[in-house]
Amino acid sequence: MDIAILLYDDFTALDAVGPYEVLTRLPGAVVTFVGKEARPIRTDTTRLAVTADAAIADVTSADILLVPGGPGQMALMEDEAVLDWVRHIDATSTWTTSVCTGSLVLAAAGLLQGKQATCHWLALEQLRQFGAEPTLQRVVFDGKVVTAAGVSAGIDMALHLAARIGGDDLAQAIQLGIEYDPQPPFDAGSPEKAPEHIVELLRSMSRFLMEPTTTA
Amino acid sequence: MDIAILLYDDFTALDAVGPYEVLTRLPGAVVTFVGKEARPIRTDTTRLAVTADAAIADVTSADILLVPGGPGQMALMEDEAVLDWVRHIDATSTWTTSVCTGSLVLAAAGLLQGKQATCHWLALEQLRQFGAEPTLQRVVFDGKVVTAAGVSAGIDMALHLAARIGGDDLAQAIQLGIEYDPQPPFDAGSPEKAPEHIVELLRSMSRFLMEPTTTA
Repeated sequence: MDIAILLYDDFTALDAVGPYEVLTRLPGAVVTFVGKEARPIRTDTTRLAVTADAAIADVTSADILLVPGGPGQMALMEDEAVLDWVRHIDATSTWTTSVCTGSLVLAAAGLLQGKQATCHWLALEQLRQFGAEPTLQRVVFDGKVVTAAGVSAGIDMALHLAARIGGDDLAQAIQLGIEYDPQPPFDAGSPEKAPEHIVELLRSMSRFLMEPTTTA
Repeated sequence: MDIAILLYDDFTALDAVGPYEVLTRLPGAVVTFVGKEARPIRTDTTRLAVTADAAIADVTSADILLVPGGPGQMALMEDEAVLDWVRHIDATSTWTTSVCTGSLVLAAAGLLQGKQATCHWLALEQLRQFGAEPTLQRVVFDGKVVTAAGVSAGIDMALHLAARIGGDDLAQAIQLGIEYDPQPPFDAGSPEKAPEHIVELLRSMSRFLMEPTTTA
């Protein structure tokens, strides 16, 4: 099973690595990190580089396509070469997936027309201009298109996918293997649950997620 | 605040990237990925490479040291040059931390003597031979040493650390920024919660976590 994960400058690392860590454990899975060019790709913090081992020109199909989010998604949405590749891979994929603002890349490629989809909560409404129906859920299945909410939601999405692909036992074995028994110290991970002043803080810094405080 | 994350061949990506995604959002945080040499480092699946931007020789101190786990930890536990570096960084760190079997590296460096610590549940008892007290909890603080359970537990650990370092509001803002509102499809992330036959499956394949099914 070929799994292509698209990388691009200024992506958010956990968007890609969370679901990778789950999907790579599917029997027969072969994950390939793909960039416009094959080279190390810097994440949004500039402090981390992940290698794209293949260029889009070298990858002509995948069973699962995954597009992570991150501030670089804005430039990517206008990169016709990459959008063409996304459309081409989607044409024969079994699953076309995204995490966080990666869904905006799928949307810009025209793949979410009339579909329910999610995104990072701060960017969710942007889906509407591409004909998608913004859906404030952590993981949204609409046919073969699966979108996950912000950053960490890709882990949950990948476990849902693992269950669909390999059954509940396999998904639970993977979950236990990565010891995914989440115990965050706060229940503040969504705008409905976080204290109002924290939600307002993030809204007022609405590029908070886009521009982490770390700089070189 | 300098944060050094140690990379080594055959580490598990999420162990490092999960807490990175939280800690990099601390105000003033400067994360550096550090390897024995500065070069791209392949993870345990061989399908992903993360760049060590600095060599251990170039990094002489850090406020936070983080050692991820993964099957490569076994070789690392006998690498005196790396263990010396770990000891040297720990000598002046504010926090010395690990995820998954990374605690065995801290243990091999002699840093867990008489301390409570955790590890991936399949390797937890190995801590005992290094004088540590195995503690089956997701995140264990013992003085300045903080250890997290398997793979995904580093995210929870980092949020606990963020709260200690910057306060509850900051930690919640980071949690909301990465939309960490976990909703796994199953409650199977720990050996106490997973169905018994799944636990036995993983015990019988006890290198499951160490050797993901993906191969090149």
